[in-house]
Amino acid sequence: MLRYAAPLELVIQELERLPGVGPKSAQRLALHMMRMDPADVQSLGTAIAGLRPSMRECAQCYNYSAGELCPICDDPRRDRGVLCVVEQPSDVMALERAGEFTGLYHVLGGVLSPLAGVGHEDLRIDELLARIEQLRPSEVIVATSPTVEGDATAEYLRRLLSDREPVVSRIALGLPVGGDLDYADQVTVARALRGRRPMDD
Amino acid sequence: MLRYAAPLELVIQELERLPGVGPKSAQRLALHMMRMDPADVQSLGTAIAGLRPSMRECAQCYNYSAGELCPICDDPRRDRGVLCVVEQPSDVMALERAGEFTGLYHVLGGVLSPLAGVGHEDLRIDELLARIEQLRPSEVIVATSPTVEGDATAEYLRRLLSDREPVVSRIALGLPVGGDLDYADQVTVARALRGRRPMDD
Repeated sequence: MLRYAAPLELVIQELERLPGVGPKSAQRLALHMMRMDPADVQSLGTAIAGLRPSMRECAQCYNYSAGELCPICDDPRRDRGVLCVVEQPSDVMALERAGEFTGLYHVLGGVLSPLAGVGHEDLRIDELLARIEQLRPSEVIVATSPTVEGDATAEYLRRLLSDREPVVSRIALGLPVGGDLDYADQVTVARALRGRRPMDD
Repeated sequence: MLRYAAPLELVIQELERLPGVGPKSAQRLALHMMRMDPADVQSLGTAIAGLRPSMRECAQCYNYSAGELCPICDDPRRDRGVLCVVEQPSDVMALERAGEFTGLYHVLGGVLSPLAGVGHEDLRIDELLARIEQLRPSEVIVATSPTVEGDATAEYLRRLLSDREPVVSRIALGLPVGGDLDYADQVTVARALRGRRPMDD
């Protein structure tokens, strides 16, 4: 079977490596690029090619960063007294989108997972201890995912920090806003019950 | 609200321009690129940035091409006696995938559409006549889409070529293979009836 001209075929092959992009959509995207303004296609390609060389880890929190410090660590208005521990840089943005948290983050780089061979030395736990030593926050919020590994990692951190100054808290687990009690799984409902709070007047 | 670091934000914005890529999936793709092998991200970007500068129209059929001639026009095994007229380069690949046609193509660049202000001078119709003059094919297959404009364009070409040598044929319109008669729209069913053929023994 004949294929597209080589440069087009190459773009299709490269696009197929992306998650959720199958052969059909890779082809559709590449053909669309042939109809776009050539300058726009060029700037898309240049942005992607330049992405990794221009990105590094924030020297403080290990979030994705263009410079030495990420925009959050670099922002003097952020509250240095609260530290939120997350698994991945994408979790930082999930929390930022909520617009609720004004402190600093610490990206662990994963969760403890004995089955996957991820031990505490594979995560940025020593770096977390060093930051707590340096920042002396009043609270450390553990925002790892509510999975078996995420919970185990949260529990590990709670114990590790038990003889230190900051209060260690865990983000609330319960029903998602707008969710239907009837449709929630039983573990979530159990967690929501256990995490119940007195209602304000 | 804080955003991602600038290079990542740029990639997200650029990806959002692609069809079917919303803000959520642009973000997902960009974050995936941060976890991919940096060399793979680089080669994806380089392939996209190099796409348009390295592509042009085939000098004969106006299909997408890297060189002077597209791989099909350049293939000496293709039958120069049959010419298939299509709307767009993507239609060439749709026909090539079927693996049924062994002749050459001619990409019109669209269909006649008085409402959209597309007249015969906007399509590659003079070029088609010149090719017919040069190749002297025995058959011209009109494979424009079975839409009002596609049908009108096919009829226009049939009349235009009526006093010339080649037989002008139209691709069959009927039920799609695997389709359910019960679910087909009435126009398709009517076309399928009108296009009925005696069954071979």
